Amino acid sequence: MASERVIVIGAVAAGTSAAAKAKRTNPDLDICVYGREAHVSYSACGLPYLISGAVADYQALIARTPAQFARDGVTVKTEHEVTDLDVAAGRVTVRNLATNTTFHDHFDRLVLATGARVNCPPVRGIELQGVFRLRSMHDGLAIQAYINEQQPKHAVVVGAGYIGLEMAEALLDLGISVTLINRSKTVLSSLDDDMSNQIIERLEAAGVHLALGAALEGLEGKADTVTHVVAGKVDYPAELVIIATGVQPNSELAASCGAELGEAGAIKIDQVGRTTVDRVFAAGDCCTVDHRILNKPVYMPLGTTANKQGRTLGAFLAGHERPFRGVVGTSVTKFADLHIAATGLSVEQALHHGYHVRSKIIHSTDHAGYYPNARPITVKLVANAADGTLLGGQIIGYDDVAKRVDVVAVALAGRMTVDEFAWQDLSYAPPFSSVWDPLLVAAQALAKG
Amino acid sequence: MASERVIVIGAVAAGTSAAAKAKRTNPDLDICVYGREAHVSYSACGLPYLISGAVADYQALIARTPAQFARDGVTVKTEHEVTDLDVAAGRVTVRNLATNTTFHDHFDRLVLATGARVNCPPVRGIELQGVFRLRSMHDGLAIQAYINEQQPKHAVVVGAGYIGLEMAEALLDLGISVTLINRSKTVLSSLDDDMSNQIIERLEAAGVHLALGAALEGLEGKADTVTHVVAGKVDYPAELVIIATGVQPNSELAASCGAELGEAGAIKIDQVGRTTVDRVFAAGDCCTVDHRILNKPVYMPLGTTANKQGRTLGAFLAGHERPFRGVVGTSVTKFADLHIAATGLSVEQALHHGYHVRSKIIHSTDHAGYYPNARPITVKLVANAADGTLLGGQIIGYDDVAKRVDVVAVALAGRMTVDEFAWQDLSYAPPFSSVWDPLLVAAQALAKG
Repeated sequence: MASERVIVIGAVAAGTSAAAKAKRTNPDLDICVYGREAHVSYSACGLPYLISGAVADYQALIARTPAQFARDGVTVKTEHEVTDLDVAAGRVTVRNLATNTTFHDHFDRLVLATGARVNCPPVRGIELQGVFRLRSMHDGLAIQAYINEQQPKHAVVVGAGYIGLEMAEALLDLGISVTLINRSKTVLSSLDDDMSNQIIERLEAAGVHLALGAALEGLEGKADTVTHVVAGKVDYPAELVIIATGVQPNSELAASCGAELGEAGAIKIDQVGRTTVDRVFAAGDCCTVDHRILNKPVYMPLGTTANKQGRTLGAFLAGHERPFRGVVGTSVTKFADLHIAATGLSVEQALHHGYHVRSKIIHSTDHAGYYPNARPITVKLVANAADGTLLGGQIIGYDDVAKRVDVVAVALAGRMTVDEFAWQDLSYAPPFSSVWDPLLVAAQALAKG
Repeated sequence: MASERVIVIGAVAAGTSAAAKAKRTNPDLDICVYGREAHVSYSACGLPYLISGAVADYQALIARTPAQFARDGVTVKTEHEVTDLDVAAGRVTVRNLATNTTFHDHFDRLVLATGARVNCPPVRGIELQGVFRLRSMHDGLAIQAYINEQQPKHAVVVGAGYIGLEMAEALLDLGISVTLINRSKTVLSSLDDDMSNQIIERLEAAGVHLALGAALEGLEGKADTVTHVVAGKVDYPAELVIIATGVQPNSELAASCGAELGEAGAIKIDQVGRTTVDRVFAAGDCCTVDHRILNKPVYMPLGTTANKQGRTLGAFLAGHERPFRGVVGTSVTKFADLHIAATGLSVEQALHHGYHVRSKIIHSTDHAGYYPNARPITVKLVANAADGTLLGGQIIGYDDVAKRVDVVAVALAGRMTVDEFAWQDLSYAPPFSSVWDPLLVAAQALAKG
């Protein structure tokens, strides 16, 4: 009997995770992964640091090459785009982008790991040279090559989310003047304004020109190359533009076979990765994920989640069902020396979802004030006013921010109340914390009301 | 009506926490704190760093002075020792150590925050000059003065627990040669041997002479001053000796009034700080604390716990009952650049308490391997083989160790299974973690079996 054939569309995080896990768990599976790019299985989150030069070689970002997958018995085809599906026939139409030829392949089960693309605003000049998005290794290498060749002096970054901030840092590190344009009056919408103000101050101190509350109107160029960005009726000179205005799921193939789409048009999947279409599965940035606080699927594409969904799906395809219960909404980034993390719901998000909330902001130091190199840290905790459960945390500081938000994330998954969280047995020694960790100080203050 | 009088015996962490919290919560209380030392309300955990010079001024370790307490309406008497109790009469006998006079004071309710003392081995020469313990500010300043005056070249530290390691580091920092003697063949008994081996390597690399598995036999001196330590039949030259062989509770006053004692002779208290004697309360290093995994009171004296017990008791004395549910057994320290943390039960401890366990050690990096300055981190997780719940974690590395152990500590308090923990939504960005955080890598490995 021929072994069951699984075709995976998409070869970055979720797709390769699913394929590798499935093959490891059930070596009898015949697995073929199609990826559009020349590179597969790389850390897209590392791309800003490749561009900045912090990571010297793009190959460091690659977890596994097609040759390595082949040794494990997984076929990975690069520069192959799946253009069409026929689920009933178990058939995909594939274009070899290198040879520009098309062929058919057959599957018993199909995995959609088609990822997401930048939600590019439809303004004039968006296709000028020097205007980039940053999603793929291809994008990252193109930006790097353009900077090396054109030596831009002025850059505009459109969008002040995680990628926007990381690219602002990367470009500043390269000595390029940066203007950061954002439609809303704040940066990093995962944080409340009373926290993100600190980030705005740090951006300004680093010399980033901020244009907040400014709608992108268009891009102007000369000889097909960008020279200016127009936003909020102001002209910003730019020989390099990064469009970082958020992403939307690549769910067209899923829609074409009748799979139900959810929030933001992302593919609806269950906790093992089933779509609503038999034999068709999905994972990663093209999918929804269950939000454990909101108790509903949301669109929140992140590398960690893509890996978890991929691994979960891979195990399921190999016969091992272990549902992935979802996320609480944790993220972290840094701008220069400022570390910024959030988990769960901000006050603004909680209010949007109908919660009655209480919150508290405290200012402390990342470890005992008397021990060398203690630096400021700000913690905001948000609680459900109805039952006292913790709803979210936001932390900004210079050290020990990311792991402190993880402490909150685990408390959120455990549905812990603020009152219980305020007395947790967190580690203490002067080089690492105050006797009341800033998390406990915040929780104690919030528990008191 | 005269206000109710609360006498607190002990003026470091628990005693001053209780007094301050009680007065803040109910300003009508008449509160008097008696402390034996000249200094009160200081961070004893900071003393090794005062001795090393990392903390320049001992006053930086002091949270609040008697004058500051007085402004808040709390009387704090320094150099006063309570020598006797009559609970029925509501009377304490107090000796003013400065004037060597004795008087009586009256209480309606009494708080015992008498702390702990070093469990000094009864060997010859223990009272020689140059032999110190490190519990109090008095001890710390005495060690500092002795080092300045005598300029010792060789030190012996007896005991390889947290204080032993921290003092080894401090003395090395001062250019003093250090021999570390320990009765058992390992260091830091809160960790399993397969983890603490890394610490032994780091101690040796730093030039610490190790005498493990060596029983302390005695101290030799000349003209009342120590010159040698004899252990395991070997003579170690030492003009300075630090006895760091663990502590025992100062529970004699409690015993004298009939209060029940528990593990290690510590005062048994309930979750608000009641002893078994009416009107007598206790908190801090003289007390037991509930262990949330073992579900029983244990003796585990730590500064964080003392503060939590003190605050809980203070609130209770002021009429606000909020039980403290106890600890999971979290601790952290560092030796040189090596950070060492543990929470919950080690394999050895779990076996001792009758658990059937599974455990896993993984080696990873503290953040993405391709991002600058990634360093090794080792994580060990321990699970209950019967039901899969997490029992403990041990982490050794160079960064992000303390907060990672806090993530495990919160999972322990929530009685999380390893399988659930393995999929937690921890923050990810290349400067802070790998896409699978080392904690998740360990949990995934352990969940798999």
